[in-house]
Amino acid sequence: MSFEIEIPRRDNPALAQAVQDRWNSLTKPPGSLGRLESLVLEYALMHGTATPPLQSKTLVVFCADHGVTAESVSAWPSEVTTQMVKNFVRGGAAISVLCRKKGIKPVIVDAGVNSDVEIGVLDRKISRGTRNLAREPAMTVPQVEIALRRGADLALELAADVAGIGEMGIGNTTAASALLCAFAGVSPEDSVGNGAGLNAAGVRRKIEVVRRALELHRPDSGDRVRTLAALGGFEIAMMTGFLLGAATRRLPVVVDGFIAGAAALAARSIHPGVLDYLIFSHRSAERAHGVLLDALDARPLLDLEMRLGEGTGAALAIDLLEAALGLYKEMATFTEAQVATQP
Amino acid sequence: MSFEIEIPRRDNPALAQAVQDRWNSLTKPPGSLGRLESLVLEYALMHGTATPPLQSKTLVVFCADHGVTAESVSAWPSEVTTQMVKNFVRGGAAISVLCRKKGIKPVIVDAGVNSDVEIGVLDRKISRGTRNLAREPAMTVPQVEIALRRGADLALELAADVAGIGEMGIGNTTAASALLCAFAGVSPEDSVGNGAGLNAAGVRRKIEVVRRALELHRPDSGDRVRTLAALGGFEIAMMTGFLLGAATRRLPVVVDGFIAGAAALAARSIHPGVLDYLIFSHRSAERAHGVLLDALDARPLLDLEMRLGEGTGAALAIDLLEAALGLYKEMATFTEAQVATQP
Repeated sequence: MSFEIEIPRRDNPALAQAVQDRWNSLTKPPGSLGRLESLVLEYALMHGTATPPLQSKTLVVFCADHGVTAESVSAWPSEVTTQMVKNFVRGGAAISVLCRKKGIKPVIVDAGVNSDVEIGVLDRKISRGTRNLAREPAMTVPQVEIALRRGADLALELAADVAGIGEMGIGNTTAASALLCAFAGVSPEDSVGNGAGLNAAGVRRKIEVVRRALELHRPDSGDRVRTLAALGGFEIAMMTGFLLGAATRRLPVVVDGFIAGAAALAARSIHPGVLDYLIFSHRSAERAHGVLLDALDARPLLDLEMRLGEGTGAALAIDLLEAALGLYKEMATFTEAQVATQP
Repeated sequence: MSFEIEIPRRDNPALAQAVQDRWNSLTKPPGSLGRLESLVLEYALMHGTATPPLQSKTLVVFCADHGVTAESVSAWPSEVTTQMVKNFVRGGAAISVLCRKKGIKPVIVDAGVNSDVEIGVLDRKISRGTRNLAREPAMTVPQVEIALRRGADLALELAADVAGIGEMGIGNTTAASALLCAFAGVSPEDSVGNGAGLNAAGVRRKIEVVRRALELHRPDSGDRVRTLAALGGFEIAMMTGFLLGAATRRLPVVVDGFIAGAAALAARSIHPGVLDYLIFSHRSAERAHGVLLDALDARPLLDLEMRLGEGTGAALAIDLLEAALGLYKEMATFTEAQVATQP
């Protein structure tokens, strides 16, 4: 599959100046809203307008199972993926609650869960879970190509002004760690954390699994699709496609924690321009997330020691974006409020 | 004035266990909501119940003028205090927008603004601005006692489950810096920042003003009221009283940036138990705020490089608290959702 992706450039000095002028006209010391100001600036540049819309907010949760759970790399049985998908649909999961509270529409996508597609879930299933990446490629190259395509198509079809992405998949931090090694030259020791609650012995085992996988597949970061196939997962590949598709239509995407970050890394390896349309929500407590953020030169908005996934950090960041945009649009100017400016 | 303050202890191991049990029963890895979990735990301990209420949210903005502006310590003319109070009432300020968006009731308090009390503002005015703390005590001891009393009474009367506190007062970072020196033994160099936009020469001047004030008044941190009188401000003294009053009735208070932080420092010097009922919202970009937070051993929730005051950081933190409490109350348990727990 050859990707012919055109991502519009975000760079626009005249627009940036217009946004800055608006911020500076508002009744507050210049720059005093800090990252809320830069966030709106970036969001406006993504949309290509000084008055970007934020009516429709969506959070897409990509779900899939992972054959590598056979290596005991997770503290949880892999059935939990399916059980949590049901929980998403019934509204009992953390991301369900946050979406409800924050007026964000959740979209649950079955990218490759090891069970029948749940009612209420978007069926984009490629297979019932990946193979065990410690012993063979997790996916075939055609499977990855389909996942990328389906992800991109989803981004192109989505009726939203902003999208958050998150995931659910027991075993997927192992895949994300392996991808961090392959795409950013990080060692297994530095790329592996305790996921959803692994103990120290489990972490050592997980490091060994990643090391074996790298030795087995000898990934070439230049051969992106084969690397994704060998080490990734259906939800990670689909998120990668989603990010690329979103960037082609200038749809800002709020990237959640470690696994969505690995998809961002993969997407950047396919087209670096994708980064222009990403907002990084939070710094996860997953140890390797800091390494991943550094590799992406990304500075997330929040640091709340969360490590849940599902897009929970992205939901909070979308809410922060909405607050920032509300200030930008609704605050009075110095002239309107008859407040003196600096002498 | 002798303060006879009784602050109930927050400490309650059985209640802490009940909250922890609830968090651990919910469908997520234990602890994976990070600081959202500890925030709810603290909030529950403050209210003394495992199901703390959060129906009524209030943000109190304490406003006053400062005689020390005669020393050119601010980048803004002191008329801006009055102009911003009008802006609060009309709904055009940053805190107005945030309160509107987040369902928080704003209460604007005139503690000592140098103009007539604005309609729509709570009249707790003590005088029209303080005197110049670089040349004489900013307030008299009786004025401070009245400010503390009015602040405490306001906290006792307030119909709210949580209160944020913020402030407006041109010149008040100078007073806050002087108090940081007096109450925490910090040097003027380390306690002074650029406030609402002072240039380098202005910052040097401000450091000299604080140094002169300390030499003039030789504050004794043990004589809290006289120290507050010499170096503080009406809004700072009233916030100090508010914090103490709130703690006596177990009302959690979300403390905004640098100036409200100085009030927390003063309140702690009067009764250390007050800290049990404080939530620190954000790390301000005001340089000395980090020093102040360290002195309070406080770890704020957000770090967004904001330095606006008005309670803007507190409004965002109250919203975060509401999200956290929503998760705690509405997420499904493992049993309800039929999700497997860790083996």
